[in-house]
Amino acid sequence: MEFEYSDKVKLLLERLQRFMDDYVYPAEQTYHQQLQEDRWGEPPIMVELKARAREAELWNLFLPDPRFGAGLSNLEYAPLAEEMGKVLFSSEIFNCSAPDTGNMEVLAQYGNAEQQQRWLQPLLAGEIRSAFAMTEPKVASSDATNIETSIVRDGDDYVINGHKFYISGLMNKRCEIMIVMGKTDADNPNRYQQQSQILVPTSTPGVKIVRPMTVFGYDDAPEGHAEVIFDNVRVPASNLILGEGRGFEIAQGRLGPGRIHHCMRLIGQAQRALEMMSRRAEQRVVFGRPMIKQQSVREDIAKSACEIEQARLLTLKAADQMDRYGNKAAKDLIAMIKIVAPQMACTVIDRAIQIHGAAGLSQDFTLAQHYAYARTIRLADGPDQVHMMQLGRNLAARYGAEH
Amino acid sequence: MEFEYSDKVKLLLERLQRFMDDYVYPAEQTYHQQLQEDRWGEPPIMVELKARAREAELWNLFLPDPRFGAGLSNLEYAPLAEEMGKVLFSSEIFNCSAPDTGNMEVLAQYGNAEQQQRWLQPLLAGEIRSAFAMTEPKVASSDATNIETSIVRDGDDYVINGHKFYISGLMNKRCEIMIVMGKTDADNPNRYQQQSQILVPTSTPGVKIVRPMTVFGYDDAPEGHAEVIFDNVRVPASNLILGEGRGFEIAQGRLGPGRIHHCMRLIGQAQRALEMMSRRAEQRVVFGRPMIKQQSVREDIAKSACEIEQARLLTLKAADQMDRYGNKAAKDLIAMIKIVAPQMACTVIDRAIQIHGAAGLSQDFTLAQHYAYARTIRLADGPDQVHMMQLGRNLAARYGAEH
Amino acid sequence: MEFEYSDKVKLLLERLQRFMDDYVYPAEQTYHQQLQEDRWGEPPIMVELKARAREAELWNLFLPDPRFGAGLSNLEYAPLAEEMGKVLFSSEIFNCSAPDTGNMEVLAQYGNAEQQQRWLQPLLAGEIRSAFAMTEPKVASSDATNIETSIVRDGDDYVINGHKFYISGLMNKRCEIMIVMGKTDADNPNRYQQQSQILVPTSTPGVKIVRPMTVFGYDDAPEGHAEVIFDNVRVPASNLILGEGRGFEIAQGRLGPGRIHHCMRLIGQAQRALEMMSRRAEQRVVFGRPMIKQQSVREDIAKSACEIEQARLLTLKAADQMDRYGNKAAKDLIAMIKIVAPQMACTVIDRAIQIHGAAGLSQDFTLAQHYAYARTIRLADGPDQVHMMQLGRNLAARYGAEH
Amino acid sequence: MEFEYSDKVKLLLERLQRFMDDYVYPAEQTYHQQLQEDRWGEPPIMVELKARAREAELWNLFLPDPRFGAGLSNLEYAPLAEEMGKVLFSSEIFNCSAPDTGNMEVLAQYGNAEQQQRWLQPLLAGEIRSAFAMTEPKVASSDATNIETSIVRDGDDYVINGHKFYISGLMNKRCEIMIVMGKTDADNPNRYQQQSQILVPTSTPGVKIVRPMTVFGYDDAPEGHAEVIFDNVRVPASNLILGEGRGFEIAQGRLGPGRIHHCMRLIGQAQRALEMMSRRAEQRVVFGRPMIKQQSVREDIAKSACEIEQARLLTLKAADQMDRYGNKAAKDLIAMIKIVAPQMACTVIDRAIQIHGAAGLSQDFTLAQHYAYARTIRLADGPDQVHMMQLGRNLAARYGAEH
Repeated sequence: MEFEYSDKVKLLLERLQRFMDDYVYPAEQTYHQQLQEDRWGEPPIMVELKARAREAELWNLFLPDPRFGAGLSNLEYAPLAEEMGKVLFSSEIFNCSAPDTGNMEVLAQYGNAEQQQRWLQPLLAGEIRSAFAMTEPKVASSDATNIETSIVRDGDDYVINGHKFYISGLMNKRCEIMIVMGKTDADNPNRYQQQSQILVPTSTPGVKIVRPMTVFGYDDAPEGHAEVIFDNVRVPASNLILGEGRGFEIAQGRLGPGRIHHCMRLIGQAQRALEMMSRRAEQRVVFGRPMIKQQSVREDIAKSACEIEQARLLTLKAADQMDRYGNKAAKDLIAMIKIVAPQMACTVIDRAIQIHGAAGLSQDFTLAQHYAYARTIRLADGPDQVHMMQLGRNLAARYGAEH
Repeated sequence: MEFEYSDKVKLLLERLQRFMDDYVYPAEQTYHQQLQEDRWGEPPIMVELKARAREAELWNLFLPDPRFGAGLSNLEYAPLAEEMGKVLFSSEIFNCSAPDTGNMEVLAQYGNAEQQQRWLQPLLAGEIRSAFAMTEPKVASSDATNIETSIVRDGDDYVINGHKFYISGLMNKRCEIMIVMGKTDADNPNRYQQQSQILVPTSTPGVKIVRPMTVFGYDDAPEGHAEVIFDNVRVPASNLILGEGRGFEIAQGRLGPGRIHHCMRLIGQAQRALEMMSRRAEQRVVFGRPMIKQQSVREDIAKSACEIEQARLLTLKAADQMDRYGNKAAKDLIAMIKIVAPQMACTVIDRAIQIHGAAGLSQDFTLAQHYAYARTIRLADGPDQVHMMQLGRNLAARYGAEH
Repeated sequence: MEFEYSDKVKLLLERLQRFMDDYVYPAEQTYHQQLQEDRWGEPPIMVELKARAREAELWNLFLPDPRFGAGLSNLEYAPLAEEMGKVLFSSEIFNCSAPDTGNMEVLAQYGNAEQQQRWLQPLLAGEIRSAFAMTEPKVASSDATNIETSIVRDGDDYVINGHKFYISGLMNKRCEIMIVMGKTDADNPNRYQQQSQILVPTSTPGVKIVRPMTVFGYDDAPEGHAEVIFDNVRVPASNLILGEGRGFEIAQGRLGPGRIHHCMRLIGQAQRALEMMSRRAEQRVVFGRPMIKQQSVREDIAKSACEIEQARLLTLKAADQMDRYGNKAAKDLIAMIKIVAPQMACTVIDRAIQIHGAAGLSQDFTLAQHYAYARTIRLADGPDQVHMMQLGRNLAARYGAEH
Repeated sequence: MEFEYSDKVKLLLERLQRFMDDYVYPAEQTYHQQLQEDRWGEPPIMVELKARAREAELWNLFLPDPRFGAGLSNLEYAPLAEEMGKVLFSSEIFNCSAPDTGNMEVLAQYGNAEQQQRWLQPLLAGEIRSAFAMTEPKVASSDATNIETSIVRDGDDYVINGHKFYISGLMNKRCEIMIVMGKTDADNPNRYQQQSQILVPTSTPGVKIVRPMTVFGYDDAPEGHAEVIFDNVRVPASNLILGEGRGFEIAQGRLGPGRIHHCMRLIGQAQRALEMMSRRAEQRVVFGRPMIKQQSVREDIAKSACEIEQARLLTLKAADQMDRYGNKAAKDLIAMIKIVAPQMACTVIDRAIQIHGAAGLSQDFTLAQHYAYARTIRLADGPDQVHMMQLGRNLAARYGAEH
């Protein structure tokens, strides 16, 4: 047992932190201004930063498969993801942003050579973006067996009909491909073999974007979250990934790493909030004394640090277990971080907002937007309650049987 | 001691609820659509609803002074404010929306006849809107002695210089007047006699609106929250309210009723969230059963109801004490509701969001926007911590001396 | 609606408070010393205090039936119960202590003339004490249909067999009678008509006290909580209360007032804890300043006051609704106070302990013992979760059906 | 970075767990029964278990100095301390119980050869027990500069006068030595050089034990917590440890490892509570279904597991940092675990109590007593607030200076 990052990670982390300090933090304002002008386009500053990131060999760090990416383990990538989490748009700079990461992993792991050539390569190059269409407005999608979108074989094609929402990334003009989860065999008695995943180019006729969904008042441009209708969308049968009835299996495969990434980014957000509240508390004078002299402010800072460090260690342990024993063996730890990290980030960021006063809710600090993101993750990939349901059941079965 | 509303209140409340059911809830969607077209203007549906409200004699209900308003006590008005709280824009329909209410109270109580004629009358008629300019970005404004805006006598005028932000209502095109808090005598050894309040028409040269501030991504149109610079703004000396050095006194006077109103609206929001989560829990099926069968959902509903009812009773008691003994005697109770109600509303609405899944964060339900409002009130009129500081000190002094 | 106690209540409350100040607080130490010498007996100081209380006409205040008691409504009695709650043993001084109160209410309401003569009269006179035997170690007794104790008719007698625990009051030497809940008709398809309640003198052969149960480390002398076995305990058939199959109905009847009493006493405990932490904070110097200068201490005091006042108002409203509309109509409010008050008391007392340091856990302050009592009430009469289950279900059904 | 215990630790842990399963759990009831007969003596079963532990080479595991103990690092000892934490009296079996451990560390590190010969050797052999007398009733002892006990040089002796309480271990008949913290130089302008530590045999004339203090009704026999008066207690000058004015320095030295031990034991308690609630939830039927079917029970179990694992990792990291960089460099992490672990244990154990119903508060399960212990640790070695004060200040200074 050891709690120090490896030398390899330390070097990468330093390089990434220097990049953040040199290029990303100074670009925050510019990025948001450029985005005002073209809400769903690519801000010029992003093009520039991506070029720099490739040059600095900070590219595709998330992808453990060395054929395609940096070949880092989950444990090695985790502290890098934390660092990227401190600025919402920075993951894209390093081609490490969701849902592209999950889509690339799926294509790398389950895609055939043709699918990889056609879609994985441009994604790896950062030339296009992608979406993953799973959530539906009419059913509780955290239970994948509820999904109603149909994928029906018709000759050499599949025809897709359904209604999805909160499809992140789909509003973006550069989003060219999406992976759609639907049912090819809704009557299969094995409820986990009803689903399939299929590649659908966003330009396919019948893909009708209804509107951008908001989160709190944010549209989360330039990715956005689309409501979309699939109205007799027809794609070649070769677009199916892995085979009919394998959709649930593919979905499970993407969840583990995705959660590690989300959680580490949230830890980065929380860490940044801690640093911001520390600075504010040192500098702001209230009732004649710097805020840091207030015991309740010190307690907020102390509690936040305790909660962040604990969530960080838990997430790193989950990453380590995934690397050692696989996603399935690590499933309880993965559930734990999904329960812990988003709630922790909400709590810490909320304290930072309070210490910043009204400004903490404004566009001048990233706190309110980070809060909205963290709050969203309490619902994405299944609400907290679903993970607690499964984790509680597993643990009770394990401990209840002992002694 | 008695816990039933009076017959008078019951009748008013029924009339108001019928109005909400008949006209307001059905207009929610239209209102938001019209607002999209003219962000800072007055949606036509609002004009229509206001006419109906006047006709129904549901107008200026907040104003206890029978010369100008409905003549209801705080205790009588409270349940009506709760009802209005259920729809964010509905207070305006009944000419009961902040900050107009506070400004009307100030003008009714402290304004001279000329000021009342010029500004109170059109406000009472709902013809214009207003703002209250107090908060400043550079200092902790919860401590009014920090305020840096200067109001300097120059001949028959006052000249105002300063920088304010989060000035609610000021983005609105119909906002014609604001009350500005600043210092006429920054060196007065009595720190509570340095401030004055002065009337400033929004069209006065030198009033420079910098930008709208956002709250969790919301611009809160059509009122909005402006950042504004006062650059040598010159107004006649007769615009001063009550007299030089009376600014703090006036500010204190407006706080009591303002807090009752805010808190009752928050209770209405929380009550609506409770009703929404109840419906969702009854109707939504997860893992084969309606959500309401889940014990944790029942606990969320039960706890929410307990917290709402407690905050409601506390706020009503504060209103009763204000009516009986005055704002000053009721100051500990007023502090209590300011501490309790916004946090309670945040908690209850957050539970409702969780039960609604991703949709709970969207524009399709009012929950996320209500959360943002409730979260703001934890900071407006002084953050929770300031009220706890004063309340804790007062109570310890009282109880610490006994026995 | 009105938040002032009536003049009648104010006078009674003053008289009671004076009695507490003059006789009860000064006797606290003596009481505990005398109890050390005879753990399950009656301390001489108690005899003396009871005589004084009768003389001061502060006797049987809890009993609304004017034939037997003071004839106060629940709303009138509530603030008196709060006051008594401040000293754990003080309810007995005024013959208002559980479980005697509940037993007297049952006998007054459901007992026949003979039962009232034989048992109610000496209880009203404070000559004997009593117990209520319901909870069983082997089943979840919060669901009364689980109860396994059998009450079998045999000629002119009933024969009782069963195993109970946490039978409060039964360790006391003066406990002469208990009301036992068991099943006379375990196979009745109506699960709420299986139970009966029967009077069992504690001296009846076959009543075998196993041991005193502790709560945390307290034996709660001189009442105590007994584990007891009923081994072919035979009593005359005339000891049955109301009739076979009426046990559940009687149990329901005693719950409403019992919960009001418990909750008001808890509020008294919390109020005393607030006063104690205030004094400590004013007097104790830490790191060179009185503790009250610490913002976190002020926040503890402020939050505690807010929570106490809210719980108090909620309990008073529940009492008022019971008086006006009956226990059944008030059932949601009764559930609410059962959920709110014990948890609130635990929270407030815990803060007071923290502010007192190690001494707060000791025998020198009442805080730790009060905490233990409050913690117990979170389980007595059904754990919090059972009340939330029912309340959540009721509210969802009500609100879910609307609109 | 790595999250697996070393092979050495795994082997030790297995041996210890087997010992616990084979000898300790089966002895729990016997131990408590024997203790009833001789409250402050040594139960015969303890003598037997200690002999077995020595035989099994599970002895003095806590002591990193290989001259005297097992020579394990903090990181290696931590999981063993966790295991011992599951049964309150088990640390003593392995001669690893506080305050003997801290006293042995002090003597090993700072004692001279004579002191080690006279007191350390019998302590290492488990022949005698000891106490550490620091806390005083009249001052906030978390600030060591408040201590009022005087240690005055008089010829070849020191004379001690003072009043201490909550001196753990001192009630025990086998307690032969205590280390007393007092002031030899109360006027020293350097407030951290006023204190000294001195060895005082418990049989010295003038050591007057006033009474045992309780914690939530527990006397915590056979160690107990004494209130004690030092009335002109005279000991040879050679009993002073390290030298005059070194008391604060010695106190600091003992805190780090002591906190690791306490926290790991608390984690063991929490883990045991988790296992107990899991079993109860699996086995207990409520309202017709096993409790584990209730979502709120599952959430309690899931949350508890998350909180335990996080606190465990944090404590292990603190241990690792102490081993690598020393107690001083690890001080922020040590503060963190002191803040986190006791509160976590209270929360988890409280949930387990609730799931057990009334029985959870009784002597039949260890939960209530473990709660009392965990609650005490929130105050021992300084209340949570003191650690948050220092940690918050340190972090704000660090982060506030950056960027």
